[in-house]
Amino acid sequence: MVYVPTGIIGVDKILAGKGIPGGHTVLVSGGPGSGKTTFAVQFLYAGVIEHGENGVYVTLDEEPSDIKKNMSKFDWDLEKLEDENKFRFINVSPVRVAPSEKGGLIQIGMKEFRLIKLLEAIKQGVQEVDAKRIVVDPITIFMLQYPDEIDRIHAMRDLMRELRNTNCTNLLVSELRGTGWEREHQFEEYLAQGVILLRTSLKGSRLVRAFQVEKMRGLAIDNQPRPYEITDKGIEVYPSATVYK
Amino acid sequence: MVYVPTGIIGVDKILAGKGIPGGHTVLVSGGPGSGKTTFAVQFLYAGVIEHGENGVYVTLDEEPSDIKKNMSKFDWDLEKLEDENKFRFINVSPVRVAPSEKGGLIQIGMKEFRLIKLLEAIKQGVQEVDAKRIVVDPITIFMLQYPDEIDRIHAMRDLMRELRNTNCTNLLVSELRGTGWEREHQFEEYLAQGVILLRTSLKGSRLVRAFQVEKMRGLAIDNQPRPYEITDKGIEVYPSATVYK
Amino acid sequence: MVYVPTGIIGVDKILAGKGIPGGHTVLVSGGPGSGKTTFAVQFLYAGVIEHGENGVYVTLDEEPSDIKKNMSKFDWDLEKLEDENKFRFINVSPVRVAPSEKGGLIQIGMKEFRLIKLLEAIKQGVQEVDAKRIVVDPITIFMLQYPDEIDRIHAMRDLMRELRNTNCTNLLVSELRGTGWEREHQFEEYLAQGVILLRTSLKGSRLVRAFQVEKMRGLAIDNQPRPYEITDKGIEVYPSATVYK
Amino acid sequence: MVYVPTGIIGVDKILAGKGIPGGHTVLVSGGPGSGKTTFAVQFLYAGVIEHGENGVYVTLDEEPSDIKKNMSKFDWDLEKLEDENKFRFINVSPVRVAPSEKGGLIQIGMKEFRLIKLLEAIKQGVQEVDAKRIVVDPITIFMLQYPDEIDRIHAMRDLMRELRNTNCTNLLVSELRGTGWEREHQFEEYLAQGVILLRTSLKGSRLVRAFQVEKMRGLAIDNQPRPYEITDKGIEVYPSATVYK
Amino acid sequence: MVYVPTGIIGVDKILAGKGIPGGHTVLVSGGPGSGKTTFAVQFLYAGVIEHGENGVYVTLDEEPSDIKKNMSKFDWDLEKLEDENKFRFINVSPVRVAPSEKGGLIQIGMKEFRLIKLLEAIKQGVQEVDAKRIVVDPITIFMLQYPDEIDRIHAMRDLMRELRNTNCTNLLVSELRGTGWEREHQFEEYLAQGVILLRTSLKGSRLVRAFQVEKMRGLAIDNQPRPYEITDKGIEVYPSATVYK
Amino acid sequence: MVYVPTGIIGVDKILAGKGIPGGHTVLVSGGPGSGKTTFAVQFLYAGVIEHGENGVYVTLDEEPSDIKKNMSKFDWDLEKLEDENKFRFINVSPVRVAPSEKGGLIQIGMKEFRLIKLLEAIKQGVQEVDAKRIVVDPITIFMLQYPDEIDRIHAMRDLMRELRNTNCTNLLVSELRGTGWEREHQFEEYLAQGVILLRTSLKGSRLVRAFQVEKMRGLAIDNQPRPYEITDKGIEVYPSATVYK
Repeated sequence: MVYVPTGIIGVDKILAGKGIPGGHTVLVSGGPGSGKTTFAVQFLYAGVIEHGENGVYVTLDEEPSDIKKNMSKFDWDLEKLEDENKFRFINVSPVRVAPSEKGGLIQIGMKEFRLIKLLEAIKQGVQEVDAKRIVVDPITIFMLQYPDEIDRIHAMRDLMRELRNTNCTNLLVSELRGTGWEREHQFEEYLAQGVILLRTSLKGSRLVRAFQVEKMRGLAIDNQPRPYEITDKGIEVYPSATVYK
Repeated sequence: MVYVPTGIIGVDKILAGKGIPGGHTVLVSGGPGSGKTTFAVQFLYAGVIEHGENGVYVTLDEEPSDIKKNMSKFDWDLEKLEDENKFRFINVSPVRVAPSEKGGLIQIGMKEFRLIKLLEAIKQGVQEVDAKRIVVDPITIFMLQYPDEIDRIHAMRDLMRELRNTNCTNLLVSELRGTGWEREHQFEEYLAQGVILLRTSLKGSRLVRAFQVEKMRGLAIDNQPRPYEITDKGIEVYPSATVYK
Repeated sequence: MVYVPTGIIGVDKILAGKGIPGGHTVLVSGGPGSGKTTFAVQFLYAGVIEHGENGVYVTLDEEPSDIKKNMSKFDWDLEKLEDENKFRFINVSPVRVAPSEKGGLIQIGMKEFRLIKLLEAIKQGVQEVDAKRIVVDPITIFMLQYPDEIDRIHAMRDLMRELRNTNCTNLLVSELRGTGWEREHQFEEYLAQGVILLRTSLKGSRLVRAFQVEKMRGLAIDNQPRPYEITDKGIEVYPSATVYK
Repeated sequence: MVYVPTGIIGVDKILAGKGIPGGHTVLVSGGPGSGKTTFAVQFLYAGVIEHGENGVYVTLDEEPSDIKKNMSKFDWDLEKLEDENKFRFINVSPVRVAPSEKGGLIQIGMKEFRLIKLLEAIKQGVQEVDAKRIVVDPITIFMLQYPDEIDRIHAMRDLMRELRNTNCTNLLVSELRGTGWEREHQFEEYLAQGVILLRTSLKGSRLVRAFQVEKMRGLAIDNQPRPYEITDKGIEVYPSATVYK
Repeated sequence: MVYVPTGIIGVDKILAGKGIPGGHTVLVSGGPGSGKTTFAVQFLYAGVIEHGENGVYVTLDEEPSDIKKNMSKFDWDLEKLEDENKFRFINVSPVRVAPSEKGGLIQIGMKEFRLIKLLEAIKQGVQEVDAKRIVVDPITIFMLQYPDEIDRIHAMRDLMRELRNTNCTNLLVSELRGTGWEREHQFEEYLAQGVILLRTSLKGSRLVRAFQVEKMRGLAIDNQPRPYEITDKGIEVYPSATVYK
Repeated sequence: MVYVPTGIIGVDKILAGKGIPGGHTVLVSGGPGSGKTTFAVQFLYAGVIEHGENGVYVTLDEEPSDIKKNMSKFDWDLEKLEDENKFRFINVSPVRVAPSEKGGLIQIGMKEFRLIKLLEAIKQGVQEVDAKRIVVDPITIFMLQYPDEIDRIHAMRDLMRELRNTNCTNLLVSELRGTGWEREHQFEEYLAQGVILLRTSLKGSRLVRAFQVEKMRGLAIDNQPRPYEITDKGIEVYPSATVYK
């Protein structure tokens, strides 16, 4: 089996020193401000720079220009990668009329926004840069389109099957609702081949960020929560530290 | 990137010593009596006085005259700013028939109260004083108009896009339902570019006010809860103190 | 700004040594047996005796004769005040056929019981005694008439606006559902200009009564829970004590 | 004001050394096996024996013969009181066809079972023995007939008003749903003039019975939870002891 | 009053040294694997062997042959009792087409499965062996037939009345949903004359089985949780031990 | 009674040193990443290698090729067993159009996917390899087809009866929703003859995996949670260790 290093400090060590099994689709789930988007951009950026694997960032909510601005505090020259055709933003946020980015732009109403349009956009991006890594951020808006639970599971399974057919390694960014350690598992945690949690843990009134690989099929992982920070290098996980005692 | 100092004691230090990234829309969420409105007025007042940035206060619930009366314990001469065309209250509370303030007044029934009317009112105010900062207080009543969750997300995304088009920096005041540390994240926390929480924390039976920047895109922030007080200078946050140990 | 002393031992000290800002509408929320009605009667009685401000007590549940009987353990001669036209009970409990009190009596079916009838009754009482203080007890039954949340908020906002037009200072008595420290905030806590909580706190298996001013617009308050008792003088709050350590 | 001693060991001391204010309607709420029925029978029995006040026991669930059998472990000769026309069971359990007790019997289908039938039965019993004390056990089945909350409140208020018109002192037995200290207050706790709780408290894995007068209008009560037991004398409350430390 | 010893080690001591009051219907409620069925079989087996009281086991879920197989680890020769007409399994599990047991078999669709069929089956079994003890296991499937709560209470009251008319002493086996100490009381706990809980308690991460008589009308019981085990003699309760300290 | 050793290190010791009673259907319930599938494959693999019992793996979600890939970290040569007709994957994941595995493939739409198709697939697999052990993974998707609870119980009982008719010993893999120790029991825990939980327990912020046999009819089991790990030998349970103290 082939492994895809994330390039994120500390993470690959937790992933058995290897990375994400190639072709897997991994859910990255966290609260507001947890660094989900930073994690995802970093995964794609390291893919191009360190491993020569091009990447596609499918955004369903934020504008590509905003993501780039918010990432400007890091030393990641995304525009250079775009110019070199190694990286592409695909903007599929529903109901937009603003002029397009360098990447593709698809203008659709939210009610019509469904699986087929999303898949078309993904495939277009993959083809344009010959991508090996895909991010979809956030998957939450996609799932809200399917109020019926059976339909929603159906749609997620279809999406995951199609992502697998691209032969890329994929991150699906997901928004956590609860804030505590104890919570309900979501069905998508069962469908995905891996689940990474970016959580906030409370020790008294002090917040600690906790990184946890809940699941990674085909890999013997460390499933303990580990402290992480968002530094000027992006996400940094401390794979040997404990969140608190 | 340009940063907009809040002018509130202690807050800009937490915001990486800079302030809110210019053009961002930030959710300010707190319980009853937490000082949300004080925070918002202070943000606009400091904008005019310290940074020469005019401001618009869009109120959906309280009367402008009441806000002014409640703020009279502070040394902020809002009426002077109004007279100088540097500050404007826009009253869009639904179903009102009382005589108008110096600022605009829009008389509509609650059931008809929707996005377009709100946007018209905001734009009118921005134009009148050439505003650089906007407050909408509270966003809760606006969201209640959309019982369907998809519609509500849609409306919030539209509102945020239009606020961005004004080129102002914006605060949306939101009402917290839960009282404890653990709670469900609300979807608007994901949509906004920043989230500031004004919470009440219990240590035994003693209440402590806790200020927390949960999220601020594009900025390396201190996300720890920090004690704050409402003094005769307005909100004061203690950026180096811990809420309790 | 004018302040209206409550006349309740310990409370005005918590209210910045002043009292309730004149014209404000304050929610008084507590569980069964917490002394809500005692608090409200005391507020009106002290108004007449100590400050020459006449009062109206609008009761939606208990009979005026019962309230008087239950208050007979205190030294408050309400009937004398009624005879002197300084105090009035207004009985608007829905669906009643019993003979009337000295104050007004309105006989209506519960389903028909709505805002307009309540407002008529209030205005009649205010006019009869030239009142400066109003109590509505409990507001819960009024709100139950509006199953739709938007309608209910609407009705509460209308009620509060009309109360303000009377130029009186007002208490709305409300029934708490939860029993613990942590609870959901109710929307009426946001609409009211002040919120006073009469709660029961558990220390092990020992009950402690806790008085807390959650919110008071326009006033720098002590928002800590403080112990209180119901003594033969009515409610007594201990503004310098802590509920427990 | 007249007071009606309960005759239950320890209880009258908690009720300011007096008892229940005459004519009041008191909710007695407890879990399965908490001794609610024992408490209620004891209240009526002591009424006859110690105070010469006759009593009516309205049962909505158990058969009178069963109640008598279950009470046979105590030294209360209910049949003698029945023979002397000082005590009466009124069986209004819906849908029964068994032969009648000495007291009245009303055969109705559950769906038709409503306020009017219940009131007729109560009045019949009061008249038969010239009663001064009434028990209705349990009120839960009565309330289940009204699925709409407004209707249910309406029915409870009507029942309480009619009970008051009998000039008797009344206990309404109610079934608790939750098992812990923290729970939601029920609306009937607000409607009743007194609330007595028979609860079970957990100290580690040890159960302690806790008696608590949550509310008693017109009376300065001890509202602390107090330990109680069911002995061969019936309910015994220890008014000076604490539940646990 | 007559008492029916359970014959289960430790239980009769908890039941005031006597047993279940004759003719009572007792709910036995526990989680999966708590030994509910073992308890029920043991009650019937001891009835025949130690007290000459024949028994009927009405099964709504498991096949009689399975129950016998699962009980084979104990020294209870149920088949011998069946051959001697002292014990009978009645299989009323809905929708079955398998060949019948020695006892009766009723083939009905689940949707048609209602009170009358269940009562016919019970009566048939009681008649066949002249039974004095009845078990119905589990009552949960029966109650699921009545989605409306009023209907369900109605059906349970009817079932209990008919069981009483058999003059047998009865156990109704019920399935607990919650796993912790604190839970909602179910209405059937109020309807039954006795309630026995077989629970699992957590002390840290260690499980302890806890036996508790929550209620037993007509009997002064020990209502403390007591440890129990499932040994090769069946259920064994330790009536003098505490679950943990 | 015959017992079927699981072949999983430590588990048979917990199962009274014997294994699962032959012909039983056991629920294996766990969260994402808990090793449910590893447990199930190991059960079948050990069946063939150590006990000469062939096995069928019915997969409702993952592709057989994926399961094999994910299991490749262990030394289990599943393909050899397939070639020797001792093991078979049966793919009944709804709505698939990909080419088939060595095992059977059934292409159906999710909405049509119901009990009969599942049973046909199981029987076909059992016949092909003369299986003695069956795994169905996960049962969750099957149950989601039945939104009505009565229908769902009905379908699960039918499935279990048919599984029993195969004379195989069976594992049903189920997905846990809650993450803490306390949770609601699911009805399928009552229907199954055994329940095995693979849970995650939190000690502070440290995760511990906890293996627990909640129930195993016909067997005296150790029902304590025991630590387990996923090693390069598969699941390893430590039957004498405690999860934590």
